[in-house]
Amino acid sequence: MLFVVGIGSGSERHFTKEAEEVLNNVDLIVCYKNYKRFVERFNKPIYTTGMTKEIDRVDYALKEAKDKDVALVSSGDATIYGLASLAYEINAVKGYNVDIKVIPGITAASLASAILGSPLNHDFVVISFSDLLTPLETILKRFKCALEGDFVICIYNPLSKRRREPFLKAMEILNDFAKDKDYVIGIVKNAGRDKENIVITNFKELYNNLDSYLEFIDMNTILIIGNSSTKIINNKMITPRGYLDKYKI
Amino acid sequence: MLFVVGIGSGSERHFTKEAEEVLNNVDLIVCYKNYKRFVERFNKPIYTTGMTKEIDRVDYALKEAKDKDVALVSSGDATIYGLASLAYEINAVKGYNVDIKVIPGITAASLASAILGSPLNHDFVVISFSDLLTPLETILKRFKCALEGDFVICIYNPLSKRRREPFLKAMEILNDFAKDKDYVIGIVKNAGRDKENIVITNFKELYNNLDSYLEFIDMNTILIIGNSSTKIINNKMITPRGYLDKYKI
Ligand SMILES: C[S@@+](CC[C@H](N)C(=O)[O-])C[C@H]1O[C@@H](n2cnc3c(N)ncnc32)[C@H](O)[C@@H]1O
Ligand SMILES: C[S@@+](CC[C@H](N)C(=O)[O-])C[C@H]1O[C@@H](n2cnc3c(N)ncnc32)[C@H](O)[C@@H]1O
Repeated sequence: MLFVVGIGSGSERHFTKEAEEVLNNVDLIVCYKNYKRFVERFNKPIYTTGMTKEIDRVDYALKEAKDKDVALVSSGDATIYGLASLAYEINAVKGYNVDIKVIPGITAASLASAILGSPLNHDFVVISFSDLLTPLETILKRFKCALEGDFVICIYNPLSKRRREPFLKAMEILNDFAKDKDYVIGIVKNAGRDKENIVITNFKELYNNLDSYLEFIDMNTILIIGNSSTKIINNKMITPRGYLDKYKI
Repeated sequence: MLFVVGIGSGSERHFTKEAEEVLNNVDLIVCYKNYKRFVERFNKPIYTTGMTKEIDRVDYALKEAKDKDVALVSSGDATIYGLASLAYEINAVKGYNVDIKVIPGITAASLASAILGSPLNHDFVVISFSDLLTPLETILKRFKCALEGDFVICIYNPLSKRRREPFLKAMEILNDFAKDKDYVIGIVKNAGRDKENIVITNFKELYNNLDSYLEFIDMNTILIIGNSSTKIINNKMITPRGYLDKYKI
């Protein structure tokens, strides 16, 4: 059987009881090489591959899962830019007939939201800026629709040293869209991990200092752009649900 | 100190180690009355109020937190349609000066995604259909923008016996939008709890049987509408990330 397991930040405190139990009981753990450190404490055989080796990793996990219990581990939640869909797809295409069960985990947006304050407390969009599998036009169109809808926007995979174009184009779109408005922006690097680092700022400041943000933001970073109501209260980024507009206190 | 704690479905297996520890250590737990059953096992004093008493609940928790450790408990994640923002807001408006810390939890979208298969495995939108605090036009505009962007759409608070209009209007919008296309839809009631119940269908079928869905869907239900690529594989709802379009296996 294959368990596709989300482990949140990877820090022990963000594992659910269910993830903990599954990882204690499987025969083999399969994960991305940089996440090995998060699962070594289970004392199980661990098979790892590097970035862009996702198909190999999933295929290996499925083959082993024919006669063993295997955990394919993702950071955050395994169904959010994780490998759960690919496991179901390869299982069907190759006719492996393995039983698959997904164990949900805390996704980076929730981890970051708790650290920043409560920016997700109204309708929001989750969007990846990686154009490896999604055409750049699709990414930018979705970003525009999200702005149009005044959603809070969570950006996964914002940029890497070699992939800055989606981010830069999106910031141009936001600059045109914002005009004289401004938006609160929260940035969380390594949420829940060593070297956690956060910035709460606004779009104008970010746009005026784009070069330094291009240095700061990396592949372990999530950005949250507030909606038109998001504000800073006592240094926290807060999107009101609307109670205090409706009820007097 | 006030801890605003997300407990996932409420079932023990979905608590994180951190939530577990906080609830074991506080002096008082404050929550919605129907969630009392999820926190009784901690053997702490519990203060509850009913629906629409959110302001009272948060105000009480903050006042008690001046000289005690208090946990304000939400289902799912406390920053996603939970009470985290309201806690920060009331704390500031009333000048309580209480330290607040949010403990992230697994939100209903992740719980439902794991049960349905992997429908969230590409860009998605989270939207609430409750028009108690959000104007109906805003809800419908956001729904249209989400369709326009071909996002997977997670609908929280889809309908209640007395609040069907947003849902019915949204289904009309989707019917106009879909034309001859169809969309996979996953519905999960009581995710991770007793009486968990799921349906995987498509929009045309749902639209043709609206009356029975109006009976089935309630306030403990989440709906996930797939994007144009979402499909059903071995009875699971899967949104491909795109690996198999790009790479041969
Ligand atoms: C391939 S995606 C995996 C997402 C993961 N499955 C989840 O649900 O969080 C990787 C992206 O998630 C975000 N991310 C994941 N973990 C993070 C963390 N601990 N801190 C900040 N961002 C994180 C970053 O944007 C990163 O580029
Ligand atoms: C006030 S919101 C609270 C959301 C919660 N804070 C979260 O992050 O999941 C309540 C709505 O969340 C969804 N929901 C919460 N828990 C659920 C569960 N266990 N199963 C299905 N839907 C759930 C339903 O749509 C419900 O109407």
